[in-house]
Amino acid sequence: MSRVVTFGEIMLRLSPAGWQRLFQTGEMRACFGGAEANVAVSLANFGEDAVFVTRLPDQEIGHGAADALGRFGVDVSHTAWGGDRLGLYFCERGAGVRNSLCIYDRAGSAFQRAKPEDFDWDTIFRAADWFHFTGITPALGGELARICQEACRAARQKGITVSCDLNYRSRLWPEEEARRIMTALCADVDVCMGNEEDAETVFGIHSSGTDVQAGILSGRGYEKTMEELRDRFGFRQIAFSLRASHSATRNDLSGLLYDGERFCRSREYQLDHIVDRVGSGDSFAAGVIFGLCRGWDGQKTVEFATAASALKHSIEGDFNRVSCREVSKLADSGGNGRIER
Amino acid sequence: MSRVVTFGEIMLRLSPAGWQRLFQTGEMRACFGGAEANVAVSLANFGEDAVFVTRLPDQEIGHGAADALGRFGVDVSHTAWGGDRLGLYFCERGAGVRNSLCIYDRAGSAFQRAKPEDFDWDTIFRAADWFHFTGITPALGGELARICQEACRAARQKGITVSCDLNYRSRLWPEEEARRIMTALCADVDVCMGNEEDAETVFGIHSSGTDVQAGILSGRGYEKTMEELRDRFGFRQIAFSLRASHSATRNDLSGLLYDGERFCRSREYQLDHIVDRVGSGDSFAAGVIFGLCRGWDGQKTVEFATAASALKHSIEGDFNRVSCREVSKLADSGGNGRIER
Amino acid sequence: MSRVVTFGEIMLRLSPAGWQRLFQTGEMRACFGGAEANVAVSLANFGEDAVFVTRLPDQEIGHGAADALGRFGVDVSHTAWGGDRLGLYFCERGAGVRNSLCIYDRAGSAFQRAKPEDFDWDTIFRAADWFHFTGITPALGGELARICQEACRAARQKGITVSCDLNYRSRLWPEEEARRIMTALCADVDVCMGNEEDAETVFGIHSSGTDVQAGILSGRGYEKTMEELRDRFGFRQIAFSLRASHSATRNDLSGLLYDGERFCRSREYQLDHIVDRVGSGDSFAAGVIFGLCRGWDGQKTVEFATAASALKHSIEGDFNRVSCREVSKLADSGGNGRIER
Amino acid sequence: MSRVVTFGEIMLRLSPAGWQRLFQTGEMRACFGGAEANVAVSLANFGEDAVFVTRLPDQEIGHGAADALGRFGVDVSHTAWGGDRLGLYFCERGAGVRNSLCIYDRAGSAFQRAKPEDFDWDTIFRAADWFHFTGITPALGGELARICQEACRAARQKGITVSCDLNYRSRLWPEEEARRIMTALCADVDVCMGNEEDAETVFGIHSSGTDVQAGILSGRGYEKTMEELRDRFGFRQIAFSLRASHSATRNDLSGLLYDGERFCRSREYQLDHIVDRVGSGDSFAAGVIFGLCRGWDGQKTVEFATAASALKHSIEGDFNRVSCREVSKLADSGGNGRIER
Amino acid sequence: MSRVVTFGEIMLRLSPAGWQRLFQTGEMRACFGGAEANVAVSLANFGEDAVFVTRLPDQEIGHGAADALGRFGVDVSHTAWGGDRLGLYFCERGAGVRNSLCIYDRAGSAFQRAKPEDFDWDTIFRAADWFHFTGITPALGGELARICQEACRAARQKGITVSCDLNYRSRLWPEEEARRIMTALCADVDVCMGNEEDAETVFGIHSSGTDVQAGILSGRGYEKTMEELRDRFGFRQIAFSLRASHSATRNDLSGLLYDGERFCRSREYQLDHIVDRVGSGDSFAAGVIFGLCRGWDGQKTVEFATAASALKHSIEGDFNRVSCREVSKLADSGGNGRIER
Amino acid sequence: MSRVVTFGEIMLRLSPAGWQRLFQTGEMRACFGGAEANVAVSLANFGEDAVFVTRLPDQEIGHGAADALGRFGVDVSHTAWGGDRLGLYFCERGAGVRNSLCIYDRAGSAFQRAKPEDFDWDTIFRAADWFHFTGITPALGGELARICQEACRAARQKGITVSCDLNYRSRLWPEEEARRIMTALCADVDVCMGNEEDAETVFGIHSSGTDVQAGILSGRGYEKTMEELRDRFGFRQIAFSLRASHSATRNDLSGLLYDGERFCRSREYQLDHIVDRVGSGDSFAAGVIFGLCRGWDGQKTVEFATAASALKHSIEGDFNRVSCREVSKLADSGGNGRIER
Repeated sequence: MSRVVTFGEIMLRLSPAGWQRLFQTGEMRACFGGAEANVAVSLANFGEDAVFVTRLPDQEIGHGAADALGRFGVDVSHTAWGGDRLGLYFCERGAGVRNSLCIYDRAGSAFQRAKPEDFDWDTIFRAADWFHFTGITPALGGELARICQEACRAARQKGITVSCDLNYRSRLWPEEEARRIMTALCADVDVCMGNEEDAETVFGIHSSGTDVQAGILSGRGYEKTMEELRDRFGFRQIAFSLRASHSATRNDLSGLLYDGERFCRSREYQLDHIVDRVGSGDSFAAGVIFGLCRGWDGQKTVEFATAASALKHSIEGDFNRVSCREVSKLADSGGNGRIER
Repeated sequence: MSRVVTFGEIMLRLSPAGWQRLFQTGEMRACFGGAEANVAVSLANFGEDAVFVTRLPDQEIGHGAADALGRFGVDVSHTAWGGDRLGLYFCERGAGVRNSLCIYDRAGSAFQRAKPEDFDWDTIFRAADWFHFTGITPALGGELARICQEACRAARQKGITVSCDLNYRSRLWPEEEARRIMTALCADVDVCMGNEEDAETVFGIHSSGTDVQAGILSGRGYEKTMEELRDRFGFRQIAFSLRASHSATRNDLSGLLYDGERFCRSREYQLDHIVDRVGSGDSFAAGVIFGLCRGWDGQKTVEFATAASALKHSIEGDFNRVSCREVSKLADSGGNGRIER
Repeated sequence: MSRVVTFGEIMLRLSPAGWQRLFQTGEMRACFGGAEANVAVSLANFGEDAVFVTRLPDQEIGHGAADALGRFGVDVSHTAWGGDRLGLYFCERGAGVRNSLCIYDRAGSAFQRAKPEDFDWDTIFRAADWFHFTGITPALGGELARICQEACRAARQKGITVSCDLNYRSRLWPEEEARRIMTALCADVDVCMGNEEDAETVFGIHSSGTDVQAGILSGRGYEKTMEELRDRFGFRQIAFSLRASHSATRNDLSGLLYDGERFCRSREYQLDHIVDRVGSGDSFAAGVIFGLCRGWDGQKTVEFATAASALKHSIEGDFNRVSCREVSKLADSGGNGRIER
Repeated sequence: MSRVVTFGEIMLRLSPAGWQRLFQTGEMRACFGGAEANVAVSLANFGEDAVFVTRLPDQEIGHGAADALGRFGVDVSHTAWGGDRLGLYFCERGAGVRNSLCIYDRAGSAFQRAKPEDFDWDTIFRAADWFHFTGITPALGGELARICQEACRAARQKGITVSCDLNYRSRLWPEEEARRIMTALCADVDVCMGNEEDAETVFGIHSSGTDVQAGILSGRGYEKTMEELRDRFGFRQIAFSLRASHSATRNDLSGLLYDGERFCRSREYQLDHIVDRVGSGDSFAAGVIFGLCRGWDGQKTVEFATAASALKHSIEGDFNRVSCREVSKLADSGGNGRIER
Repeated sequence: MSRVVTFGEIMLRLSPAGWQRLFQTGEMRACFGGAEANVAVSLANFGEDAVFVTRLPDQEIGHGAADALGRFGVDVSHTAWGGDRLGLYFCERGAGVRNSLCIYDRAGSAFQRAKPEDFDWDTIFRAADWFHFTGITPALGGELARICQEACRAARQKGITVSCDLNYRSRLWPEEEARRIMTALCADVDVCMGNEEDAETVFGIHSSGTDVQAGILSGRGYEKTMEELRDRFGFRQIAFSLRASHSATRNDLSGLLYDGERFCRSREYQLDHIVDRVGSGDSFAAGVIFGLCRGWDGQKTVEFATAASALKHSIEGDFNRVSCREVSKLADSGGNGRIER
Repeated sequence: MSRVVTFGEIMLRLSPAGWQRLFQTGEMRACFGGAEANVAVSLANFGEDAVFVTRLPDQEIGHGAADALGRFGVDVSHTAWGGDRLGLYFCERGAGVRNSLCIYDRAGSAFQRAKPEDFDWDTIFRAADWFHFTGITPALGGELARICQEACRAARQKGITVSCDLNYRSRLWPEEEARRIMTALCADVDVCMGNEEDAETVFGIHSSGTDVQAGILSGRGYEKTMEELRDRFGFRQIAFSLRASHSATRNDLSGLLYDGERFCRSREYQLDHIVDRVGSGDSFAAGVIFGLCRGWDGQKTVEFATAASALKHSIEGDFNRVSCREVSKLADSGGNGRIER
């Protein structure tokens, strides 16, 4: 069992019931989620010792977030308690030609106002094997980029593997700022997750022959992008999830892992009837971390990560409520849609 | 901003929750809808000054209908209050091979018992630019065909554009009666909406090479039908929505607009995971009215109308809860299924 | 109107709401179901005089099961009241690559502890035309195999047609035991329902050229299997449902009926947006029984049975809440997905 | 087991979820109910052979009503199928100072358009012991008063006991008409149920010393009213339910039975937390019928009837979903609020 | 019909379903509310021309708030669109000894960041008769106290009646600051609403003989407080709601109105089964405004206001979904808990 | 922070939504609960280090139970995994005169089939301060009485305080057997919780002057019972919860604690609008344990325990979702029903 520390923001998520639009009837579902928290829950579900580090307001909403993670056995004992509010987001589920819609309300959150002294990385990293964060955390502003830097440094010094999911969000910061800060952070990163859009917008690396908007995906283009990322940052492993999005409820999904030598591509899943796509990238990242922690080879790792991500599309909420056994079964069989009795 | 007056019946709609059959558990969803009311709500959502004229019973159910329209900013100040009941219909959502099912209970409704003196068209049409009704209204019997005639005449005299969606419903009247009355009404109509079935059943105009039941659609057949409609009635614009229905939850949809000179055909949408198809024709009609009011050319208009109709398939209830921006975005991009953040 | 007696276990079924995982929120839907009870409900819905024979605990849960059948007009007056509990099962609805999941908790149920003296077959079979059971009943252990044997014998003696759906469940008994007991029981069976997997696991008869896991279905392979079944057991009719399972929510379905002379294959349905697949085999069996009771030819029978089964995929719960008219309409038209108004 | 025939209208009832107002969110609960149908369900729950006679439209809504009664084992085989619609009513649940609100939409229902020839009383009353109707049925107009008269005559001729619950509804008919028709009908009635308001408005008999609006109830006043009713109509038994209504959710309830000699008054229940009061009078009537059918004395009968009515206040929907055992237990103990395990 | 302008913040309100605690299952109900918005909705429901002035973010959440008011016919055309977020609050419904709990998250809301130039009072007050705000608005900080001052001045100059509900909230500002600012604002106020706690905390005026925590209410103490308020500020009318809170679900409520000469006290309501108490003070204030606008005398006004407030306790959400007719009926009758049919 | 170990069965609880009867609509709520698990959750909520020891089946239902406890931070690491099923119970919520109803289905559960070797008390009790069980555990049969004995012995030897809640359930065992086994177990018990019924049925000690069914409670009678319990078993502390049950939704509640010298009686709570009473005794027991662990005096302890129990009546489900702060606040103030903002 590896001890994996993740660091980021967890938010309250509010979604209308079913396929309703926001405020259509007022029936809503509340849950919690955030990129790094989602990774932690996946790892805990797979059986790892997952730690989620964040800052939460010391009131009912903040405790609600911590309790939701406790439900999955994620260790939240390093939480910095303080601040005024938990960030939140509204998420409307799309169907067919109507895309899913996320509206964020996270300004002034407890996490955004975190200070470096809120986190004692020496203590946090005790017995840890892996540290994971995403590009969302430094994008949140305040001192978070600096705190990420400190965490990466501390992890490096202790010989802890560092992974980063690029996760570019244009609403949070402009491309230039993202490029500057992410370039600095990636110096300490061993394993990089993302997709071709992230690579292009964050680092200006274009997957030739690929036009995501038009649904054209080029295998060789991806590989070139990955090679360039490796060359530029010295990543030990690079993992991309590849998606062709036919509609909000029908996607094709595969994964690609590059260890500097070999490109391993997973089987492709035709995903019909998507229930909730939010967090599927985090599930992929968690699968990659899990496979590498277990010492699996690239093919086995990318198959597992892609199967985990494919399953996430069938689960409501941010968290990927699937077990290691369920993911392995799908990775092995490719899915047959039969009832399990 | 154009002022568009629509005239028709609004009903209470009762649907079982999810994909349940009627009375399977007793959980139901109540909303309001009706062909012309749906058009008014769409236009209000697009930013137009929409007026809905009807007759409602002066009790909680009638006021519920008016309030539901007020929620979208539709002007209901010309409502004739009176009568005993609001018409209603039950609507079971289909899935796969099980078709959606609508059961109407509208006999004796306040609207069906409307009298010509309930509506002062001079006042109603003050400052109006457009008048819209559908073939359902005269089909309801009583004095409604006569009232429609009066409204069309009044609109014509004031130089208001008149549009009509043929909307043939075999349960409401026999073909011969529909033909007789609709032929008379269409003399005052400038813009005609419908589909090839309406044209055939109402006016006996057959789209050669098309067999809707078998899913065979012929572009040239449609065009001939439209030409004949123009020749016969002198319509300035004719708009058809074309649908290939693979199952209750999977359709292909496109639109065709003919201005007497040019045939403009929209892109075709593959609609998977249909949430609720009721009212999608009304959304198409509203899109046509909106484009023509804005002075858009035929292609832009039919792309907008078809995108609006495509989006409706993802929305629960009769009303198309989408904004002008959302429709335009789909019309421009064709939809990529990505999450909007 | 034929009188059809079915014999088996009915259970309480508990499912999370929507596409939630078990205990994700605690919202659940309770209904009742079981292979033979499902057949009885289908037959009652088609207009037959359906009798369901079982043993139920004389408390609220047992009475709940009886009342649920009473809702459909199934005759439960021959229920043996006694025992401590009603068996139950949990059923999670799958979507896309996530399969549906059923967890049974039926040990020690009132039915499993039934005794031969609980059922007076002479009385039960008065005026009966048909007796139906499935391979699940003898698999439940206790004295149920023996009771099945007695029922079959009694039916035979009275000239009642006996049908059996093989319905192999690996969790309930090992293949060898199934083979031994089902072989004995099939001696009294006139009409056999099942699929190629049942034939292979229960009787060791392989459909050559077919690999269900891989989605390869061979028409000729099925026919050979059916011929062998007829040769070995002397069945008068054999009916198979053939399924290609692309995902939990997308299947292709057809049916095959063999009367010892002719193979009748139904049209194939592309089922998208599957709502609930549990009980679809029972719907097929009920359709076969219904067609044969009515004296329909093989083609009409298998078309009806397959249409009934296809419709079941759109219905929540075990019971197939469709009428004879609805099934016939689909069987005749193949489904066009249009709204019925 | 006595065979009790009831005759009246059953309606679809639509109620907002919880304590919402109509159309507050659109979440509604559908169930079925009507005074005489409610009596039939109660009697079936108590173990009697209950028959409900009505006219229903032969479509999904009418069949839904019949199925809902079938769930409780009520015999609906004498239903006259025909007409266009099922009557319905909307029912908003009150709380505290906000009264419950019922809005009826029953004009033109299948039942209101019933004809005498729809009902063959000779066949219906075969093996029957009791016939029950309420003042609502003749109040519905059309030929219903005449049909009631025919039914009463037929029952009388066969020696069947006839009971009538006065159930005056001012919305349905004026006092004078009610008086005229009910006076005629009561000539054939053996057992009369009602309350002091009914007696006053229908027959002009005032309970002196009682002011229901002011919450003043006078025992002796009631007795005088009952004596006068007996003198005037020769009723064998008269049963009143007495209610002091403190708020929509808090009432005091007792019952009074007069057999021409003795006045039997039940214990009084302080009902807090009323869930749904609709149908509580019907539960009382059913309890009276049940006790008299069983040959119980007046005190036992009125205690049972009042306990049944008290329990109804805790049950959602029109139907009193309680067993004979539960009612007897409350009648014996007076209720202690303990959990039954 | 009077034109009443109210000014304040409207928030999104999120409440767990039923009596659940926050995040117990994740089922939530979303609605909108805020002290002044609640007053506007009440007045619109009573038939007045109600205007609500606020600042809203120009995204889905802000538009949701405006649409919710449009549903009731409140005029929101003077909305200042801008800012980043809508304030929100979480509200857990109490029962018995568990109090209701409200958690606010309104920092940084669009309204809190309003500027004086966002509101053109000259235009807003065109044709207005009344201006209403509460002590919450200046307490929100930023420039809101100054904006309130400007609005009051403008109203005064135009001869518009100004009313203020003291509405002290200790979480928003300290007593001293409240006293300073409210004292200044009250110079322009004609009609003051509040309760004895407000008077004590805001202005240091103690109701002798009253101990709210202990449930001791002294009529004469209130009167003295009111006299002192009138002497100090020259209010033309002062209205207090008086509440004895036995539990979260059981309160006694009455109202007191003082016009400088006469004290008018309403009847007292025993409120059992409280559904939702939030907004009941706003309902009282709206009732006072309504009565005074109509020119009613003090007694009629306070009876109406108290009845409106009593009814609010039975309504879910902030808005008092009752009509003028319903309030008058309760005010006249005192409530009898009978079903209205 | 004390470490408190509890030992018992946890079950799946299934309740109809709202105040529905079982299977009225099929909407159910699933949660988990059991006497000792409820105590553990309360203690964890109060901030103690709570350990729950049980045996669970290693499938989704068993893991669901463990996860539900993990949500509250209860340590379930000592769970013995094995067995076939989780026990479950159905629980219908009562209202007014209709009592709550619990139907158990726990035979053959994983816990009932536990063996002594499943639990290594030496390891379990490491660092523990307190051990708690209830009379339900030995009543479940199998080897559970023996396992309880071993646990008590082990606790005693380690100087761990042992508490037992008598919790007599007549459905589980006869009085004589209960008396024999509980007498033996109580030899090792330091702190005894229960009520006068338990004392009478389990140990034959009658509270003179008390008739629970009739609602007569005698303070002195209780004290005598407690004295006799202390004399007979040498308990260091005895705590009784005293309840007068007016209806299913209205109770009066107080607590009594006897330390061998002083009788401390808490304030009495008038509980209206009871939401869910199940588990209120467990909340009382947890409050007693918490107070004694903290070293509080008898009066403070019994006030806290009674306030905790009173709050439980307002919470859905078995678990008492309240914090130490909330309980203390109620214990200090007695509850005023005001909204907390």
